[in-house]
Amino acid sequence: MDFLDEPFPDVGTYEDFHTIDWLREKSRDTDRHRKITSKSKESIWEFIKSLLDAWSGWLVMLLIGLLSGTLAGVIDLAVDWMTDLKEGVCLSALWYSHEQCCWTSNETTFADRDKCPQWQKWAELMTGYTEVQQILFWGAGVYLLNYFLYVLWALFFSFLAVSLVRVFAPYACGSGIPEIKTILSGFIIRGYLGKWTLLIKTVTLVLAVSSGLSLGKEGPLVHVACCCGNLFCSLFSKYSKNEGKRREVLSAAAAAGVSVAFGAPIGGVLFSLEEVSYYFPLKTLWRSFFAALVAAFTLRSINPFGNNRLVLFYVEYHTPWYMAELVPFILLGVFGGLWGTLFIRCNIAWCRRRKTTRLGKYPVLEVIAVTGITAVLAFPNPYTRRSTSELISELFNDCGALESSQLCDYINNPNMSRSVDDIPDRPAGPGVYSALWQLTLALVFKIVITIFTFGMKIPSGLFIPSMAVGAIAGRIVGIAVEQMAYHHHDWIIFKNWCRPGADCVTPGLYAMVGAAACLGGVTRMTVSLVVIMFELTGGLEYIVPLMAAAVTSKWVADAFGKEGIYEAHIQLNGYPYLDQDEFTHRTLATDVMRPRRNEPPLAVLTQDSTTVEDVETLIKDTDYNGFPVVVSHESERLIGFVQRRDLILNIKNARQKQDGVVSNSVVYFTEDAPQIPASNPQPLKLRRILNLSPFTVTDHTPMETVVDIFRKLGLRQCLVTRSGRLLGIITKKDVLRHMAQMMNQDPESIMFN
Amino acid sequence: MDFLDEPFPDVGTYEDFHTIDWLREKSRDTDRHRKITSKSKESIWEFIKSLLDAWSGWLVMLLIGLLSGTLAGVIDLAVDWMTDLKEGVCLSALWYSHEQCCWTSNETTFADRDKCPQWQKWAELMTGYTEVQQILFWGAGVYLLNYFLYVLWALFFSFLAVSLVRVFAPYACGSGIPEIKTILSGFIIRGYLGKWTLLIKTVTLVLAVSSGLSLGKEGPLVHVACCCGNLFCSLFSKYSKNEGKRREVLSAAAAAGVSVAFGAPIGGVLFSLEEVSYYFPLKTLWRSFFAALVAAFTLRSINPFGNNRLVLFYVEYHTPWYMAELVPFILLGVFGGLWGTLFIRCNIAWCRRRKTTRLGKYPVLEVIAVTGITAVLAFPNPYTRRSTSELISELFNDCGALESSQLCDYINNPNMSRSVDDIPDRPAGPGVYSALWQLTLALVFKIVITIFTFGMKIPSGLFIPSMAVGAIAGRIVGIAVEQMAYHHHDWIIFKNWCRPGADCVTPGLYAMVGAAACLGGVTRMTVSLVVIMFELTGGLEYIVPLMAAAVTSKWVADAFGKEGIYEAHIQLNGYPYLDQDEFTHRTLATDVMRPRRNEPPLAVLTQDSTTVEDVETLIKDTDYNGFPVVVSHESERLIGFVQRRDLILNIKNARQKQDGVVSNSVVYFTEDAPQIPASNPQPLKLRRILNLSPFTVTDHTPMETVVDIFRKLGLRQCLVTRSGRLLGIITKKDVLRHMAQMMNQDPESIMFN
Repeated sequence: MDFLDEPFPDVGTYEDFHTIDWLREKSRDTDRHRKITSKSKESIWEFIKSLLDAWSGWLVMLLIGLLSGTLAGVIDLAVDWMTDLKEGVCLSALWYSHEQCCWTSNETTFADRDKCPQWQKWAELMTGYTEVQQILFWGAGVYLLNYFLYVLWALFFSFLAVSLVRVFAPYACGSGIPEIKTILSGFIIRGYLGKWTLLIKTVTLVLAVSSGLSLGKEGPLVHVACCCGNLFCSLFSKYSKNEGKRREVLSAAAAAGVSVAFGAPIGGVLFSLEEVSYYFPLKTLWRSFFAALVAAFTLRSINPFGNNRLVLFYVEYHTPWYMAELVPFILLGVFGGLWGTLFIRCNIAWCRRRKTTRLGKYPVLEVIAVTGITAVLAFPNPYTRRSTSELISELFNDCGALESSQLCDYINNPNMSRSVDDIPDRPAGPGVYSALWQLTLALVFKIVITIFTFGMKIPSGLFIPSMAVGAIAGRIVGIAVEQMAYHHHDWIIFKNWCRPGADCVTPGLYAMVGAAACLGGVTRMTVSLVVIMFELTGGLEYIVPLMAAAVTSKWVADAFGKEGIYEAHIQLNGYPYLDQDEFTHRTLATDVMRPRRNEPPLAVLTQDSTTVEDVETLIKDTDYNGFPVVVSHESERLIGFVQRRDLILNIKNARQKQDGVVSNSVVYFTEDAPQIPASNPQPLKLRRILNLSPFTVTDHTPMETVVDIFRKLGLRQCLVTRSGRLLGIITKKDVLRHMAQMMNQDPESIMFN
Repeated sequence: MDFLDEPFPDVGTYEDFHTIDWLREKSRDTDRHRKITSKSKESIWEFIKSLLDAWSGWLVMLLIGLLSGTLAGVIDLAVDWMTDLKEGVCLSALWYSHEQCCWTSNETTFADRDKCPQWQKWAELMTGYTEVQQILFWGAGVYLLNYFLYVLWALFFSFLAVSLVRVFAPYACGSGIPEIKTILSGFIIRGYLGKWTLLIKTVTLVLAVSSGLSLGKEGPLVHVACCCGNLFCSLFSKYSKNEGKRREVLSAAAAAGVSVAFGAPIGGVLFSLEEVSYYFPLKTLWRSFFAALVAAFTLRSINPFGNNRLVLFYVEYHTPWYMAELVPFILLGVFGGLWGTLFIRCNIAWCRRRKTTRLGKYPVLEVIAVTGITAVLAFPNPYTRRSTSELISELFNDCGALESSQLCDYINNPNMSRSVDDIPDRPAGPGVYSALWQLTLALVFKIVITIFTFGMKIPSGLFIPSMAVGAIAGRIVGIAVEQMAYHHHDWIIFKNWCRPGADCVTPGLYAMVGAAACLGGVTRMTVSLVVIMFELTGGLEYIVPLMAAAVTSKWVADAFGKEGIYEAHIQLNGYPYLDQDEFTHRTLATDVMRPRRNEPPLAVLTQDSTTVEDVETLIKDTDYNGFPVVVSHESERLIGFVQRRDLILNIKNARQKQDGVVSNSVVYFTEDAPQIPASNPQPLKLRRILNLSPFTVTDHTPMETVVDIFRKLGLRQCLVTRSGRLLGIITKKDVLRHMAQMMNQDPESIMFN
């Protein structure tokens, strides 16, 4: 195969919704590299060019890190501002969020830093009265006015988001991770990572999150980072012209995306390795790490949270955990696994309904309806009214002495000195009990609404809603254990570790463990989940509870079904994704290959007896991506494989430019022209486009080996032979169909090629 | 292939120093799994057995974590005690180390916690006088007596170590990482991970480290952990009978080894992934993480350092770093890269000399000589006398107000209040200057002696000596920058970030960056290096300096030669290790396959015309691992491949048990017996041992693809065909030989099969 001097612009590219051939991409890159290396000895200029080529990978990583970090910062700032815009506005500077507004105001004390005169709720602004006056004069009216405006803003934001997505970039919807997984496994979806998608996804993500829907920005941030990666790939021919190399960059970009989503660079790299990427050489690992770090530090220098912290939820606990606490942690793991299963089943059922019924025809209406319901139900409950990440942050927090939250309304023992750190367990006050009720309502609300939200035609991530469900459940369990330990510290289980006056239970830790469990149940992440959580707390201390919950959650969820939400969506959409699960059935290549027993024989070309017309007929009559070339129809001995695309281009070209090539010219693939009578028209030599090393297996090869070969080598098709005689062909689609069949699924669900 | 009912005990096992066939191991495991799954439906007992089988992986991980954590703890304690034994003994309890001895003594104040009456130096003990009395009366005599005893102990320890290794377990020497890399890539070295090796390596590691040689325990700990892994594999037939599955466990064990070596579980997993492992499925990642965590927490509960810390070197810095400091950090990276190159070149040259000259015949003498030189040169210098990890720990430390070390002998400004944390830069006192001289001498000494130490016939790790070299160089640079900043704070570069009275330079951070750079230069680790270092400091704050140094060091070192010390030793020993580097030459399969042009034709069997005698002659005359089976000698069309081992066993068995099988019986591999005259002896059917799906490539396949296939699928051999006609065979050894040839190395250096 000589792809160095590509004569036609389109040779070697792929069509939309087709699978790439990794081996071919790799060998093309090696050729390119070889050419540059040999040229670099010729002149200093070529040497510099070769150096630039070698460094371009790092440059791309740097650019991805910078851009995705910046975008994440901008998104964070914009979401902050727009979420608060639903409630009110900052008079001193319209572009300030509530927190920024009151930070700049000097009048406020630390205790009520969220109340300052510059920040005006809409009702205050419209009526001219202060909140206290309003409540005195109007009563419920003010509340209803604020409520109404809140819902209105939410509807406005989500309408804008869904309209922008529909009009400008239909690919900008969803979390994007299932599609990115598919793309990274070697599939072409043109425009999915394009400039328009990048722009629209960034804008609509802000709108969608601000509208208060039960969705997060983490998954879409990975999509945004991958769009950045694709954008910068186009600057360098090394990456833009090679689909294999491009995917290395995209893997790194996914790592950068998670890195900025959570402020966890190592977790990001492991996420990319574990969850997203398909082909992940060590060089990519190192570069991903670099991109993730650059992105994280760019985000930190933008400092959108105003606290100089890298991580999304910074927590610091002061108490160690005790062995006995593993029981509630494992129970939270079970809850996480059950929630994961429930969520995946219900969400997939709902999405299938959307796909197959008339529901799918009114995406805008659906978004508006869900937003309306969400906003109406969310406003009355303070825990659902605020943004979900604020909620999680509060749930994770340990109750310090200065905490003013309702969740920290404990009855203080007046005899005890109030140190900041080491506050002993106390009985819960009325605030905690009312918070518990509100949290329970919020839990039910979040569980139900998230099922309907994920999969709508707006950018929507799953991480934050899942974590919120887990954090709420965890906090409730944590408070329960804490109160039990306080009131019954003479019980055997508490006796050893929970003396009166000791600080033995940290409800915030339970919230974190619950969040990890739920996230694990939904996504089936393992190492990357624990590492991300570890990076949030920064201490190895709490890694055992997190791990216990993550392991339990995965086991429980796996017992009901092996696939995570992303794999489920991949399957729902019929993407050709070959996952890493082991194939354990005892079928052979001969059972899978086409043609089947009663199908017409395989469409093949012969090495020196097919005419141009025959080839053209074959191309017209079939839609195969390529054709095997055999010695003759009688012997059926395989000599190579030729791509449909290359055939079309070459014959078209030959007909136009090469004299004497007519419909009954013989096409030959051998070195020397066949012996033909002089009266016949000039033959056409096409050996250059013949792949002389097609991948073959024998008909007796077990399918598990075939699947392994397809997965590890990234093949597109594989020919089946017996003692050199061509019997059939297996394509990636055939493999996927067969796997679906073996798992009792509809084989026709695999839609793409 | 039906391996389920293995009729003979040895079918399916491999010989020593042979390569395994990953695809075959994998399909054997799938068969086993399939069998268990189908059986589990039969009865409750079988169901429980299948559950146990599924959980055995986690159980093995737990056991590995517990045992390797315990062993690491024991080694740490023993090393501590025996290192101090060279200087003196604790009178109150003989098994206490110096530090433990004085910790239990109540009389000491915090300032001189290393001086207590219970701890007696040998000279004190032998003469009966206290140290002060001795010095008054004897002067230099005491010093010389202590010196003499120090050297004597060192010689005794190292003699014991090398003798034990030679007599009981020759495989216990060295760091073990090159061999483990090779084993994990699919090579059999029987006994390398055996019980004896485990026992002797543990004991001699303690002796070797205590003898004061310039070596560390980190590499050997990986070997010890892998031995534990192998030990527990033998408890479960799932792992003991499948070389592929066994290697999954060993990968996880390697992670546990690094985890306990540094107290860095995540770093350990990444080390295993990046540096050691070959085949690392995601399931292994998760299990490795579990094993690494269990090991780390076991070690912490043993608490050998008495500080409740997980990590080997715990550091806490109080000052951020500044952009301008990247210049010295990058310089340290350059130094690390240069040291790495120098070390690898010199060490390999010396090891080659040892292999080829008479030097290698006197390993005991060599160890004694090197120990003697080390001890004699090390004693006078306080920085080389103590154990290397103590030295590194001191170099990493930031100078607090309470620090009594010579390195912290700064001139204090009396006007300044002495806060513990935030001490401004101060001028260096005479202690610092004398420390600088001693450190420079120590640096030269370490650089030279490590070259001769690594590769001797005792357990020896490289991590600690490399880190020591880097830490010394880094600390020197750090102090230089600090003093420059103090004395010239009006220079432009210092003006912006280093006002008088500010604490702007942390020499300990320089030491850490230097250590990372040197370790990176020698091992070429990247992500795992940075993550291990990050776990030591626990803050993302210092990851950028570490990364800058690691990247620079790798680039500089790679410019002089691509391979790290482990790959260099693999090559030196001729192990068949196929590394991950890309193969970029334009050769084809036909250039590599055997037979070459003027060699005799390939030894093949025919499907139904070879006799038992022919087969036996073929087996006697050749030493190939297997033979292709073709239709007939004329057509040479390939139908399968048969293993030498299986042939020998089956023919032997048939001759003994099967009636009528004699020397001129025909051996056939087809379904039906060939048509033979009734007078001929009964034919022998061997289809059962015929692999009907041998791996084939065409003669035109580029070698880069062949290398890729061998690497990714873990093949042992591959047949070369053209249109179904068998042309030749390529084995892993042929591939390695060809690669060595292409890199202008001696192809005969590949010794094993």
